[in-house]
Amino acid sequence: MSEHKYWKGRNILRVDQFTKADLDWLFAVTREMLFIVDNKLPNTLLQGYCMTTLFYEPSTRTSSSFCSAMERLGGSHHQINGVKYSSVAKGESVHDTVRTLAELFDVIVMRHPEQGIIPNVAEASRVPLISGGDGIGEHPTQALLDVYTILRELERPLNPDLHVVMIGDLKYGRTIHSLSRLLAMYEVPLGFYAPDSLDLPEALSAELAAQTKIAHYASIEDAIKEADVFYVTRIQRERFVNPADYDQLKGSYQVTSELMKHAKPKMALMHPLPRVDEIERTVDTDSRAAYFRQIRYGLAVRMALLALVLGKREPYVSLA
Amino acid sequence: MSEHKYWKGRNILRVDQFTKADLDWLFAVTREMLFIVDNKLPNTLLQGYCMTTLFYEPSTRTSSSFCSAMERLGGSHHQINGVKYSSVAKGESVHDTVRTLAELFDVIVMRHPEQGIIPNVAEASRVPLISGGDGIGEHPTQALLDVYTILRELERPLNPDLHVVMIGDLKYGRTIHSLSRLLAMYEVPLGFYAPDSLDLPEALSAELAAQTKIAHYASIEDAIKEADVFYVTRIQRERFVNPADYDQLKGSYQVTSELMKHAKPKMALMHPLPRVDEIERTVDTDSRAAYFRQIRYGLAVRMALLALVLGKREPYVSLA
Amino acid sequence: MSEHKYWKGRNILRVDQFTKADLDWLFAVTREMLFIVDNKLPNTLLQGYCMTTLFYEPSTRTSSSFCSAMERLGGSHHQINGVKYSSVAKGESVHDTVRTLAELFDVIVMRHPEQGIIPNVAEASRVPLISGGDGIGEHPTQALLDVYTILRELERPLNPDLHVVMIGDLKYGRTIHSLSRLLAMYEVPLGFYAPDSLDLPEALSAELAAQTKIAHYASIEDAIKEADVFYVTRIQRERFVNPADYDQLKGSYQVTSELMKHAKPKMALMHPLPRVDEIERTVDTDSRAAYFRQIRYGLAVRMALLALVLGKREPYVSLA
Repeated sequence: MSEHKYWKGRNILRVDQFTKADLDWLFAVTREMLFIVDNKLPNTLLQGYCMTTLFYEPSTRTSSSFCSAMERLGGSHHQINGVKYSSVAKGESVHDTVRTLAELFDVIVMRHPEQGIIPNVAEASRVPLISGGDGIGEHPTQALLDVYTILRELERPLNPDLHVVMIGDLKYGRTIHSLSRLLAMYEVPLGFYAPDSLDLPEALSAELAAQTKIAHYASIEDAIKEADVFYVTRIQRERFVNPADYDQLKGSYQVTSELMKHAKPKMALMHPLPRVDEIERTVDTDSRAAYFRQIRYGLAVRMALLALVLGKREPYVSLA
Repeated sequence: MSEHKYWKGRNILRVDQFTKADLDWLFAVTREMLFIVDNKLPNTLLQGYCMTTLFYEPSTRTSSSFCSAMERLGGSHHQINGVKYSSVAKGESVHDTVRTLAELFDVIVMRHPEQGIIPNVAEASRVPLISGGDGIGEHPTQALLDVYTILRELERPLNPDLHVVMIGDLKYGRTIHSLSRLLAMYEVPLGFYAPDSLDLPEALSAELAAQTKIAHYASIEDAIKEADVFYVTRIQRERFVNPADYDQLKGSYQVTSELMKHAKPKMALMHPLPRVDEIERTVDTDSRAAYFRQIRYGLAVRMALLALVLGKREPYVSLA
Repeated sequence: MSEHKYWKGRNILRVDQFTKADLDWLFAVTREMLFIVDNKLPNTLLQGYCMTTLFYEPSTRTSSSFCSAMERLGGSHHQINGVKYSSVAKGESVHDTVRTLAELFDVIVMRHPEQGIIPNVAEASRVPLISGGDGIGEHPTQALLDVYTILRELERPLNPDLHVVMIGDLKYGRTIHSLSRLLAMYEVPLGFYAPDSLDLPEALSAELAAQTKIAHYASIEDAIKEADVFYVTRIQRERFVNPADYDQLKGSYQVTSELMKHAKPKMALMHPLPRVDEIERTVDTDSRAAYFRQIRYGLAVRMALLALVLGKREPYVSLA
């Protein structure tokens, strides 16, 4: 099947839906999109197409990134932010909301606080449904942009020679869960460092260990030393029932300019943002700090995804 | 006067502002718009025109439908959702808000919880003002899309041979009020079925009886048997002061797959959505279930209204 | 330096950043923009450019005006309204939010309740940042549109022959502070009338007195008599800690049809809106009531600012 036909109409729900060939093609299109963005090339690829967001949970970053992506391809966006503005307030089921919006828009980007709900309602949509994150479940487009960031920043392929270390909230951090699964597919060795109560879930740890080498570090200094990629996450206050638990944990690790001295000269310091105090502001000017460039790569990845699922990116034609 | 000049600049406030000739023309344009949507034809009819919504009450469906309509015609939309984001919070009168927005945008779509307020402030606007519903008052574009749905689904004209039955909240349901008035104009016989305390207001009942035949049913089975159109509405929790009253009434009627066996083989089961439990989910796959197609027709009706009031639809020229 | 290069990429943060030459050029471009708006000329100057608002405080008027301005030039807009939808809720610093949005959008329009915060975070943005008002600090685009309104309404230059009187909340009214500074630069004599506790801050009074003639009036009748421009502001409830203080002051002055009899036949009655009761509704039909035309001028000023900071307005080329 041509790549073109394969992508058209697909939902984007989980990282495990992608093959290596999928990612090759996605990132080839992403590279083009980044070129379009960086050079402000006029573009009308998605003219006449309208996206709606459907966010049951606030997210400036993800929502803004998709809206910008749509507009930069000549399409338009509509925003539905939060339950109180939606007919959910009238008791409508999420299923009906999605089915309704699919009659009005060409693509839906959805975020929901409840794990698993987005894949469950996907069948209600006759247009592509893209997950913008569901609770502690998946956040597939974040994982895709993280992988693309690694490729661009390090200019190296994903393979067992690369060492990616993730720190912070490994228990609830869906970003960590999705990204680690993608990297394990390429047998990239993974390292972890987390406060005790926020360790990687055992099931995920086992799943990853079956595919690649896993290391757990005892200190943040040990963790950063060997990292080609040092991926930092914040502790998410909103996942804690008891605020005291959050207060005890926050600030238990921090990337400082001092710590960065232990890191390799060529490495990528990443963070899905927003940060609280996990990375000191003084680190921002370090050339290895990739977290704001990550935003830009994310824009390009989302442009590529929108163009592909709407069937507007020409298929790859082999020259051979 | 040419139809073109007649529509340009009009407000859309009440169903009784329309003549049969108006509706003929509106639905002719709607048919074109549906063709445009279904075939994703490129369209720049409203390029350079900007609509704003002004919603003092949440409504995903109506707001989204208008926004999509505007974008599909090459125009743009701006959303003002809810008092807390508006200068109403600073004590500004609705009148001033409307007059201000009319300086900035080309057309305003407004919803307000208070009956009668939209017609009252219409004179403040120098651009067309379209009602998106005012409290238990009118919801004219919903009634127009309901009529268009009947025409498309049944492929029959509106006349005394058609039988339309409405059930649910007949007291507070503005959708019912607006639609029944439009149908009475065509002498379409109307049937009603409601829980006791939610019967049609007596004044409206008398008004309708002066124009067409009216029947009241004692059971939902009797009601559905003779219906060419079975129009179901939910009981609106937000209209009840006492929650106990709502709890007692909700679930007092329901359209089930079992009930649908009593219905004619060619009929249209309609609902303005959102639904709570009035229509069982299993009914969705019945070919007579028209409520999601209704959304699509609504998009086309709103595209037609926007094009007409902005004076951008070419006038009808008789070939004779 | 050519005007073109000078404006491109600039932030709009304070009125004191503008020279007289800046304002000459800005208002020349504004005049063109008003012509475009009034004649609904097709325009694609900002096609492919996307603006985001970032409002930490509600403002229908300012936000709507910028969004309309962007769309009327063929660009697109994205709205972020209020903290609860932003990742600020996750503890992110305003600095990081701005830096992130600058990766996604071409220009940012920001409002914040805290004085001074917008200039402070401007360095985080690699795209132009336009202040939409910060607390009791500055609201530069309001001041610019006020000046343009004076020029258009009176058809006279800004000089010592013009007399501008400002009344109402002179203490907290940032509009007053910004506008009076701009007018003082042109040595326009200024008059003031305010309830005792809402007098002009002494520092500002001294600053203005160093540049132009200042008068304080004892009655509203005295104040309006000599005014070429009578600029009315409301008392802002949201600036008072104690509601009783607000209740005592509101309604302490009012422009009525009766009062207008004391005014010159050619004068401009202005108000930044929203009003509460400071101007009686009967005054709206007086030809000197300029406050709704002010909205329209504001749209044109913002179109000009956006075109200029995005570097899309051709430079002025002298014919000499």
